[in-house]
Amino acid sequence: MGRSAQYTVGVDFGTLSGRAVVVRLSDGAEVGSAVHEYAHGVLDARLAGGAVALPPDWALQVPGDYVDVLANAVPEAVRVAGIDPRQVVGLGTDFTACTVLPVLADGTPLCELPGYAERPHAYVKLWKHHAAQTQADRINELAHGRGEAWIGRYGGLISSEWEFAKGLQLLEEDPEIYARADYFVEAADWIVWKLTGRYVRNACTAGYKGIYQDGRYPDRDFLAALNPGFAGFAQEKLAGEIGQLGETAGRLTHEASALTGLPEGTAVAVGNVDAHVTAPAARATEPGQMVAIMGTSTCHVMSHDVLAEVPGMCGVVDGGIVAGRWGYEAGQSGVGDIFAWFTRTSVPSAYADAARSAGVSLHEHLTRLAADQRVGEHGLVALDWHSGNRSVLVDHELSGAVVGLTLTTRPEDVYRALLESTAFGTRVIVEAFRGSGVPVEELVVAGGLVTNGLLMQIYADVTRLPLSVIDSEQGPALGSAIHAAVAAGAYPDVPTAAKSMGKVRKGVFLPDEGRAHAYDQLFEQYVALHDHFGRATTTMRRLKAIRRAAVASRIGGGS
Amino acid sequence: MGRSAQYTVGVDFGTLSGRAVVVRLSDGAEVGSAVHEYAHGVLDARLAGGAVALPPDWALQVPGDYVDVLANAVPEAVRVAGIDPRQVVGLGTDFTACTVLPVLADGTPLCELPGYAERPHAYVKLWKHHAAQTQADRINELAHGRGEAWIGRYGGLISSEWEFAKGLQLLEEDPEIYARADYFVEAADWIVWKLTGRYVRNACTAGYKGIYQDGRYPDRDFLAALNPGFAGFAQEKLAGEIGQLGETAGRLTHEASALTGLPEGTAVAVGNVDAHVTAPAARATEPGQMVAIMGTSTCHVMSHDVLAEVPGMCGVVDGGIVAGRWGYEAGQSGVGDIFAWFTRTSVPSAYADAARSAGVSLHEHLTRLAADQRVGEHGLVALDWHSGNRSVLVDHELSGAVVGLTLTTRPEDVYRALLESTAFGTRVIVEAFRGSGVPVEELVVAGGLVTNGLLMQIYADVTRLPLSVIDSEQGPALGSAIHAAVAAGAYPDVPTAAKSMGKVRKGVFLPDEGRAHAYDQLFEQYVALHDHFGRATTTMRRLKAIRRAAVASRIGGGS
Repeated sequence: MGRSAQYTVGVDFGTLSGRAVVVRLSDGAEVGSAVHEYAHGVLDARLAGGAVALPPDWALQVPGDYVDVLANAVPEAVRVAGIDPRQVVGLGTDFTACTVLPVLADGTPLCELPGYAERPHAYVKLWKHHAAQTQADRINELAHGRGEAWIGRYGGLISSEWEFAKGLQLLEEDPEIYARADYFVEAADWIVWKLTGRYVRNACTAGYKGIYQDGRYPDRDFLAALNPGFAGFAQEKLAGEIGQLGETAGRLTHEASALTGLPEGTAVAVGNVDAHVTAPAARATEPGQMVAIMGTSTCHVMSHDVLAEVPGMCGVVDGGIVAGRWGYEAGQSGVGDIFAWFTRTSVPSAYADAARSAGVSLHEHLTRLAADQRVGEHGLVALDWHSGNRSVLVDHELSGAVVGLTLTTRPEDVYRALLESTAFGTRVIVEAFRGSGVPVEELVVAGGLVTNGLLMQIYADVTRLPLSVIDSEQGPALGSAIHAAVAAGAYPDVPTAAKSMGKVRKGVFLPDEGRAHAYDQLFEQYVALHDHFGRATTTMRRLKAIRRAAVASRIGGGS
Repeated sequence: MGRSAQYTVGVDFGTLSGRAVVVRLSDGAEVGSAVHEYAHGVLDARLAGGAVALPPDWALQVPGDYVDVLANAVPEAVRVAGIDPRQVVGLGTDFTACTVLPVLADGTPLCELPGYAERPHAYVKLWKHHAAQTQADRINELAHGRGEAWIGRYGGLISSEWEFAKGLQLLEEDPEIYARADYFVEAADWIVWKLTGRYVRNACTAGYKGIYQDGRYPDRDFLAALNPGFAGFAQEKLAGEIGQLGETAGRLTHEASALTGLPEGTAVAVGNVDAHVTAPAARATEPGQMVAIMGTSTCHVMSHDVLAEVPGMCGVVDGGIVAGRWGYEAGQSGVGDIFAWFTRTSVPSAYADAARSAGVSLHEHLTRLAADQRVGEHGLVALDWHSGNRSVLVDHELSGAVVGLTLTTRPEDVYRALLESTAFGTRVIVEAFRGSGVPVEELVVAGGLVTNGLLMQIYADVTRLPLSVIDSEQGPALGSAIHAAVAAGAYPDVPTAAKSMGKVRKGVFLPDEGRAHAYDQLFEQYVALHDHFGRATTTMRRLKAIRRAAVASRIGGGS
């Protein structure tokens, strides 16, 4: 049976649903797909059943929902593809991260144990569970205080979303569950365990979320200084065999075969993360190819041969994106959600009416109007920090700003200034990488915002980089299918498989020198604002503090 | 005939219409009024008839329109009042300023001469004619270069709106009209001339708009240095008898009696300006009583016994508001027009629908929503410079800004931040006066914005000043009627007349110490932004320059 008759299945576990895609081994053709929504979605107010209320900033999930994706979306995708399941030679998965759950030694989630159904800490903590900020703060303070070498690999900041903060919260808020857990495992690895019967930690989440650097975790002394009961966290709850991305984690078990309808013994790839797995899907695994997954926020991933500590990056991990190269991750905390906020709150009815008449979305209407102007014609510059800044400045107390308003400023002017502000934010990141000796040569864009041509052209003009666009609407699932192909032995490595199966339209948007030059002047003003509000002054921090005090006085009933 | 059966008529000449009000001498009761719209309105695109196009920034008027107000609104107001015209003992007027026209020695406007109907420079240049900026720039540069003492009386800046800039433009762009003009006269004085047959320059416009200080105009040397042909401008085109506010300019002529229906010989007060004449209408002529006329922009006028050079004030003039005291004028170039701009461009349809359902204006709806929060709860601070800054910074290249935006920021949050920003702008002015030894003790508010109770309370809280509100909807016309009463000899002076005829509700809004304290913290951030963008950096100037270059490239067809 040749490659053109062989297939792999990629399964992308998102925030609200899982998607399976059947991909042809020879050329990456996506021949069938299916989506299965999680029955319980995101638990952020109450546990399933409704009896137990959750505090603010919590976000949990039910692990059984993931299994349902295997049982439903996988066989449905194969059915839609119209192929014989025996033509499937490999299965690959990717997951949101850091999404973690406490399990027994055999992989059983604690929330499935008798008596634990009403214990919030027994459930999956979803990536956007943000209730471990105080733990993260302590981790960061201690790491800097002790001069831990690894903190530089994370741009100086361990996130509250990651394994150590969530694990420490678990210990301190529900020590019984903590003690009962044999492992605190990434869902990305748990699902592979479910498929193969083997617990293999993927190098990507181990590095980016588990502080696994140079072959080791933070040491016992460090952990004990956080909390004596936490001393063994890494060795007892996290440690396990590390699997490189693209390796075979194991083979489909009898039970998993029955679940998915795929042949027992099918190769299963080591787990992966949705953003990172997109790089090979976009055929962008070479040094200098920065993949920007642009949606509500933007995640930047790029492989490189050099190791450097780039200011504000999320992390650098050996083999974090492709085995054998340093994988860099960076991010912008708000992008599409800023445009959505503006469109929702700041555009008058005449525009909504005009969009309706033209049969286009308000975004599209604003984009058309905004496209009809020269660079700088609106006289504005904005800061894209409505959700804080998670790139160079790493400060969640920062906020958005618009400067240059006049009585002739129109909604499309502000909209364009906001689009540009996120492009300037990307340029700051690109320049931080360059300045650290990690050159960026190309932007490869994936994610929902690729459909906005004006936005794409602005990014090309602002960054002076050629801009390529992924040619699949299911980047993560395609990336997982590519990893499955390598795990199945059909290709020697992920970059080689990506050459055949990945899909990208190269150089779709190229910088225009005239506009790029004009943008240099606006970027200079962006940088001036960036450094003023981000470094020189405390204005934005003070505004947040004043706001918190005002809200507290309302709640407290003060004047 | 006692005062309770005697009346005066005040006529307020605005930008689009003139309003006559009949006021009882004894108590200021407004017993009748009438409005007459100018047939030609503002000529800002073409001359009347349409054959002659006007350049950008021009704004002209037709003097005959003012005469029509005398002929229509005055008799109609008397008719509505139901009084005998013989009960009218005085007539007073106020005008926009600086609104100027070239006339012959007998007062005939040049635009009424044969052959001059199609010469733009032969018409009235309205206050908002802004096409003499280059002339103003030269005047300012030269004044500072020569160290002219009078420049300090104008906060360091002569406006393009004023007599010398407009006169120099006239000379340089249409020297024939300039040569033919025997006088270049304020409409405020021309209308009094029309009524009395006498040309009397009112002390207010002579001082604020005509650089008449310490009994003299800028000297010939100075004017010759601007343009040799301009050397005689002050002595030949401006100079005339100065009349103090409240004095009798003359008596109603036979012709003017026929025009207005008022008795020949009726006392006519020296001309005045709409903002300044409002002070006695609001019974606010004492030192420390700052009158804020709040509309699209805000004009602040205050009398004081001390002379000081206050940074950024528009001017200080001996007898500029009431005879015998130094009259201070300051201003904020954008206030109500910023709120109107926001409401027009930045509020989504759901808000418009809700306002409609509630039967209130969008302003009122936003105000109600904005009122329901603690000081600082929105987390925002804004700069109110959408039309530049005409107070302390005196820089038209400045622009508006909003800082502190998040994805939860709502329209009512930004609306409130904009209301507050204008209050902070007023506090900056109040503090500039205080810092110069000219204390401000009370804010007395007039103008269209007095109806917004939230705005008024914010001003009281932000400035920590008791806030009184004029109790007339026709402040300028009432003020003119008060001046008419003094001119008629019914009261010894304007402050005394104001005590009987002016109307104010005292201390309607008092500062709340809790809120004032909270505002101190926000004001600190406003001042930080104010000094950063207004003094430390060129960001806003650069944005305007970039904008102009972009617009020029579009017009020029460049890339």
